[in-house]
Amino acid sequence: MRFSSLARTTMASPFTVHRLHMRGRHRLVNCLNSVQRTFRRSAGTERGAVQTEGTLGEDSGEKDGPKSFYELMADRQEQAEKSVLISCQSRTSEKKFLNFLSKHGDIKKHFFYESYGVYAVVEFACRDNVVSLLESAAIPSVSHESMVPFKSRLLSLRNHSSGESPSLPCQPQTTVPINELIQRLSREESVDEQISSLTEAYQLREENSRLRFLVCSLLKDIAAAYFPECTIKPFGSSVNGFGKLGCDLDMFLDLDTISGKNLKTPKSGLSLEYQMKRTNSERHVTQSILSVIGECVDHFGPGCVGVQKILNARCPLVRFAHQPSGFQCDLTANNRVAMKSTELLYLYGELDPRVRSLVFTIRCWARTHGITSSIPGAWISNFSLTVMVLFFLQKRSPPIIPTLDCLRDLAEQLLTDFFEFYATFPFSRMSLNIRKGKEQNKPEVAPLHIQNPFETSLNVSKNVNSSQLDRFVALCQESAWLLQQSETRTPTGVGGKHTTKPWGLATLLLPSQVAGVKGRKKRKPHHASERIKSLLESLKSKNDGKKNSDS
Amino acid sequence: MRFSSLARTTMASPFTVHRLHMRGRHRLVNCLNSVQRTFRRSAGTERGAVQTEGTLGEDSGEKDGPKSFYELMADRQEQAEKSVLISCQSRTSEKKFLNFLSKHGDIKKHFFYESYGVYAVVEFACRDNVVSLLESAAIPSVSHESMVPFKSRLLSLRNHSSGESPSLPCQPQTTVPINELIQRLSREESVDEQISSLTEAYQLREENSRLRFLVCSLLKDIAAAYFPECTIKPFGSSVNGFGKLGCDLDMFLDLDTISGKNLKTPKSGLSLEYQMKRTNSERHVTQSILSVIGECVDHFGPGCVGVQKILNARCPLVRFAHQPSGFQCDLTANNRVAMKSTELLYLYGELDPRVRSLVFTIRCWARTHGITSSIPGAWISNFSLTVMVLFFLQKRSPPIIPTLDCLRDLAEQLLTDFFEFYATFPFSRMSLNIRKGKEQNKPEVAPLHIQNPFETSLNVSKNVNSSQLDRFVALCQESAWLLQQSETRTPTGVGGKHTTKPWGLATLLLPSQVAGVKGRKKRKPHHASERIKSLLESLKSKNDGKKNSDS
Repeated sequence: MRFSSLARTTMASPFTVHRLHMRGRHRLVNCLNSVQRTFRRSAGTERGAVQTEGTLGEDSGEKDGPKSFYELMADRQEQAEKSVLISCQSRTSEKKFLNFLSKHGDIKKHFFYESYGVYAVVEFACRDNVVSLLESAAIPSVSHESMVPFKSRLLSLRNHSSGESPSLPCQPQTTVPINELIQRLSREESVDEQISSLTEAYQLREENSRLRFLVCSLLKDIAAAYFPECTIKPFGSSVNGFGKLGCDLDMFLDLDTISGKNLKTPKSGLSLEYQMKRTNSERHVTQSILSVIGECVDHFGPGCVGVQKILNARCPLVRFAHQPSGFQCDLTANNRVAMKSTELLYLYGELDPRVRSLVFTIRCWARTHGITSSIPGAWISNFSLTVMVLFFLQKRSPPIIPTLDCLRDLAEQLLTDFFEFYATFPFSRMSLNIRKGKEQNKPEVAPLHIQNPFETSLNVSKNVNSSQLDRFVALCQESAWLLQQSETRTPTGVGGKHTTKPWGLATLLLPSQVAGVKGRKKRKPHHASERIKSLLESLKSKNDGKKNSDS
Repeated sequence: MRFSSLARTTMASPFTVHRLHMRGRHRLVNCLNSVQRTFRRSAGTERGAVQTEGTLGEDSGEKDGPKSFYELMADRQEQAEKSVLISCQSRTSEKKFLNFLSKHGDIKKHFFYESYGVYAVVEFACRDNVVSLLESAAIPSVSHESMVPFKSRLLSLRNHSSGESPSLPCQPQTTVPINELIQRLSREESVDEQISSLTEAYQLREENSRLRFLVCSLLKDIAAAYFPECTIKPFGSSVNGFGKLGCDLDMFLDLDTISGKNLKTPKSGLSLEYQMKRTNSERHVTQSILSVIGECVDHFGPGCVGVQKILNARCPLVRFAHQPSGFQCDLTANNRVAMKSTELLYLYGELDPRVRSLVFTIRCWARTHGITSSIPGAWISNFSLTVMVLFFLQKRSPPIIPTLDCLRDLAEQLLTDFFEFYATFPFSRMSLNIRKGKEQNKPEVAPLHIQNPFETSLNVSKNVNSSQLDRFVALCQESAWLLQQSETRTPTGVGGKHTTKPWGLATLLLPSQVAGVKGRKKRKPHHASERIKSLLESLKSKNDGKKNSDS
């Protein structure tokens, strides 16, 4: 088999491709090809010139397969370019609204949502329709205020009619509160169903994804004023398949298309060049561009508030809140590695829906106990946590990624095993390497070492301090124990729907009993029960045994 | 005569129109109509809707007359939009250069000048030619630097040919040094010729004027990225006819065209409005827009250096040096009053070339003695000084403006009379009012009070302190005396060209002998000669006598 041998000779592959059963093989090979390509591309310097490689014959010409990450991104961007965002009065008639807008062209898709008022996302059949719509829009006349006359695709609908219509049907764009989630999970019949239910409640929906691309597209209009060929793409949670409703919108400004040195300089005679401002580093260029865009967003961007230019960070960025969408936005520039990481996670997530479900569950568990946080600090990041899940899946014997059948067999057990895996992992000596799918000796003294799969000399979790890691390990230990307890019990609701007794996954989201783990506060450390103490002891000795076998 | 009676009834006119001789009447009437209109427009609120007034019948339909100020501005702006600025190597063949560029279209005009290297201004027949040229331009490839990939109409010519050509013929864009000017003036035969010679040496030339509009047009490209309908226009010295080579380039961003509330809001049904950032004042909008443009110029503008945002000034502005043109630039926004003042000065200058010559001469004299300065302070501004000249011309009996014949008769005497007029003007009590062409009681205690012709409650010279005014008056007294001395002498050169003995106007530009007037330094006040002392005494008593007759 050509792919298998190639993968093994060109790079150490974590994938045991020869184990594949025929069922689902086709899709899996596509996915793996993409993963391989993502890795290979990150090593080279080419930018998107994938098709010229031509070594992975099985992939080419397969139009019936799932769309590639880049095709998916391009489709979403195209939709966004043909869309507008309109603030509406809730009591507007949906029918009248659509009739009014369809004067400018066919509406391909529309939906309403709530964020500081009701908004509509409307996608037209083509961009000319949007141009026509914008030409019909008026400049608001204000009496006691002044306006910055910057025109964008963010509009307001005025309803001059009397008469009330029913409220516009709004799509929810936020997750359920944790207590409601715990109740919901407790009503499920198995841990597997609990995991699915959690994923269903948390994952980004079609509409939310469209809204994210639309906000990128609106921001692109601002950047394109000076760099007409640029694009702004979402990356990270918004598109890697692991994003939670309400997660931040990370965007990156791609200027690479501009610097095309495609024009040959003649050997003799005259030629013309643009005069351009020169600086002493690429970083300085990025800072300049983000500084200007930050200024524009701050002064011109309707609904953009709290703009911060964080230009001296390792990766300079502009942060702001986009009120019409409700998103907290971070704009960086030329952040190609982040894009590759995003694609990698996306591809792993595509391997099987349960990969995503496990990640969602672990992320939810980690956030509930303050293992991760929305603010930066010495704790484990969502990205690190996701890599840890993937590494765990690779380390299974047989590996979970990529064999679908194994994954299917192991469903419920995975969550427990995840906690046991990291409860006993020799973090003090070993580093996680998801390129090779195995641990290796740590090159530095950081408490948690996870090799960046694209910049192998970097540690993606170098921010994590030892007390944060200790809390993580202790919680893994407790959670593994709690899950094992639940599995032996039948879920029995005591009372009505609102008081279903938490079991299984739901118990993992309750405040921790572990000494030293300040999870959701309110419990004092010395309340730790005897059963926890004995658990810790037993795991500790287990861990020591493991260490010896690893060395 | 309709115009005459209208002018007299609608506002107090300074013009004695009934005195007009037939010679030159046609041109003058046009000019005066424009002046009247400028005044009238400043009182109303309409923006450029001049043609709807239709009361000044003599002006309409006259295509053979001189162009109006706005027509002239529009022509220059149009030229600038079709032009590019190209940095060249001096030893490039002009013929090859033009051949190379004419691939993209017909060249209507071109010239070269020097400013941190040799530059060419090239005007094409149409804008499409410029688009074609820009499409052919490459992004520079740099090895040790990075670039902000902002594309503008500022380009660099690369010459890959060997072989030397003669240096490109450069147009001078700066004035002659003061000592060279003094020598040049001293070689003239009359004060009248001296005044013409000075004007010739100092005034803006065709090429310099084009370059100013081109810099505005390049800056407009930056602003138009966000406000596509905006224009940036030069105002003040650059276009009022009184600008000196090398003077600052004052520009204003005109956003009025955007805020057109031309779209009628329907009485019923739905309508769309742009969502726009709101602020609590027009001033804040101006500050926002200038802040962003300042940031763009600073970070993206090739050749733009020393960018300062002076946003808390009464009239917020962005200041920067544009190296490719050599201009010091000030950009303001929505500065309509400044534009009206510019038009007014332009129209007065158009009345007769000698109006301009007198202003140039007085300005040169004032700058030489530090009465005016390029930096702001308690001294008299060029604008104030020009208004003082105009007021003086209005106060002549008969008035110099507008009668051409009187002006012709009085040529040489005007300069002397100007100095005598202000040497004896009752500044302590009276204000200059050029709307009415007469002095009036001062409404406030400022040493020098010149009513702003467009905002009549403002004093255009409120910055001037009493010691600066005293210096001005003392220098006027000395200069009047020096001119009277010169007129009685025949110019006799002693020695060669380089040592022609200063006489007439040239003597006014030598260091002052007046006690307390620190002109061009180096002389001590107590060296003042007896003749100056007696002059001051005689003028003082003359001044006292005048005061009594004025009251």
